[in-house]
Amino acid sequence: MPSKVEIIEVGPRDGLQNENQILAHTKRSTLVKKLSQTGLKRIELGAFVSRHRVPQMEDSIKVARTCLKFAKAKNLKLQYSALVPNLRGLQDFLKTDLKEAALFAACTETFSQKNINCSIDESFERFKDVAAECKKNKVKLRGYLSTVFGCPFEGDVSPKKIVKVAHRMLDVGVYEISLGDTIGVASPKQVKQVLKALLDSGVPKNKIAGHYHDTRGTALANVIASLDMGISKFDSSVGGLGGCPYAPGAAGNLATEDLVYCLDKMGIKTGVNLKALIEVARWLQKEIGHPISSHLAMTP
Amino acid sequence: MPSKVEIIEVGPRDGLQNENQILAHTKRSTLVKKLSQTGLKRIELGAFVSRHRVPQMEDSIKVARTCLKFAKAKNLKLQYSALVPNLRGLQDFLKTDLKEAALFAACTETFSQKNINCSIDESFERFKDVAAECKKNKVKLRGYLSTVFGCPFEGDVSPKKIVKVAHRMLDVGVYEISLGDTIGVASPKQVKQVLKALLDSGVPKNKIAGHYHDTRGTALANVIASLDMGISKFDSSVGGLGGCPYAPGAAGNLATEDLVYCLDKMGIKTGVNLKALIEVARWLQKEIGHPISSHLAMTP
Repeated sequence: MPSKVEIIEVGPRDGLQNENQILAHTKRSTLVKKLSQTGLKRIELGAFVSRHRVPQMEDSIKVARTCLKFAKAKNLKLQYSALVPNLRGLQDFLKTDLKEAALFAACTETFSQKNINCSIDESFERFKDVAAECKKNKVKLRGYLSTVFGCPFEGDVSPKKIVKVAHRMLDVGVYEISLGDTIGVASPKQVKQVLKALLDSGVPKNKIAGHYHDTRGTALANVIASLDMGISKFDSSVGGLGGCPYAPGAAGNLATEDLVYCLDKMGIKTGVNLKALIEVARWLQKEIGHPISSHLAMTP
Repeated sequence: MPSKVEIIEVGPRDGLQNENQILAHTKRSTLVKKLSQTGLKRIELGAFVSRHRVPQMEDSIKVARTCLKFAKAKNLKLQYSALVPNLRGLQDFLKTDLKEAALFAACTETFSQKNINCSIDESFERFKDVAAECKKNKVKLRGYLSTVFGCPFEGDVSPKKIVKVAHRMLDVGVYEISLGDTIGVASPKQVKQVLKALLDSGVPKNKIAGHYHDTRGTALANVIASLDMGISKFDSSVGGLGGCPYAPGAAGNLATEDLVYCLDKMGIKTGVNLKALIEVARWLQKEIGHPISSHLAMTP
């Protein structure tokens, strides 16, 4: 098992994006600033997407500028990133000093069509230009794969399909792929099978991150299964933000504080101050106006 | 990993006992009857304890009689059990046709004093008479160990202490010991360490059950760690019943439906019908009047 783990905090993006409650960019900046002081080293702070399609991510330029300025003033050593689906988004992204962009591809055709309105082939076609521009501007690229462990429309996904999309994503030039259990159906056994297929196909361990949703309570168990396979990077979301907007109480992303608690207990270093993180989760709960799906923040 | 798992449903006892809301014995009987039709083979249906100290368990005689009659009429093959702390409780227990009683000992002195009002030595002294009576009446005995993975008063517990109490419990004549993470602090690493110590000390695998609380979200991960060690019996609670009564929203026992979902996905047989179980959890949520801490029952 790895002796330390890198946490990628995705609450301000993947979390808030799935909330009914829309937070103003000032509040979102406050959230990122608070998170930036917990010891987290990587935070995805927004998305450069259409404000009509995803109003939760409007004004991500302002969030990025405010937080970059804050981190510089406080001399915080951390990497902010943002989701960038296409060239249009990249234009806005490049108006900030962000140095990491994230791309997003699905492992199943139906989800790709319904989620980003194009085929998997078309999405990779788009990435070419985005990647070229990023290279020119010295912007690092990260790649999300969604529906890796199951698709709401197509059900199970074959390891062969996953391996293929993973390599296409790496070929785009991303330094890391994040394996998304988008609908939270994965079991630890399945996680090990998929990771084995990826590692056997030549994807290096340090280029893989686990992104597990806790919809059915399996996220932390899936992290442990991944650690067993030598994976040491995980996406998570403060307060477990990002549950299904149509199911109040349903869990979203793995809560960062639950992840940190378990890793702390196992003697695996994260650099994150658990107490400070729980305070952020509790503050956030008031802002979003519904109970969060975090165990640690709910425990006295 | 084991190909099948035995689930011991403890919701009607360990779950309800920790709820502020007191359910009438008729409701508790209805709960047990509903659970009895989901494919569960072992259900702890009550406790023969002082109604002044634990009003939630009053009239366990009635619950036992009603459910035994029901199971017989329906020709259900299952084993009901009940908690019996002492001879006084056993007298009531023996007024029913229950054939399995559960004892309860702590791994730490302070918890023993605060929880059952006697030292660990004294608790084992009491068990002698209870065990003798049980043997005479052909009643099987199960033994709970509490605070195995941490004590709210004494903190960490040494494996040496756990091994000692485990063997004392086996010497009483129990056919199985249930390892309780009473306050939900265990990590998968710790679970493996404790299980290794117990197995190395000569406790057979099939005499160990895991009883993990999900207070900090680690329960399912702890089950997977136990499966890795060859353990195949787990206590769980429908709806995740049994959270801390002073912390609304805090998780209690591992929810049986979350456990069944994950095992199903891993191809491990439980004999339980997940859909039927979720229906019971949702019914129960209405009865206890607060959101339950179950992932599956909250997911549409």
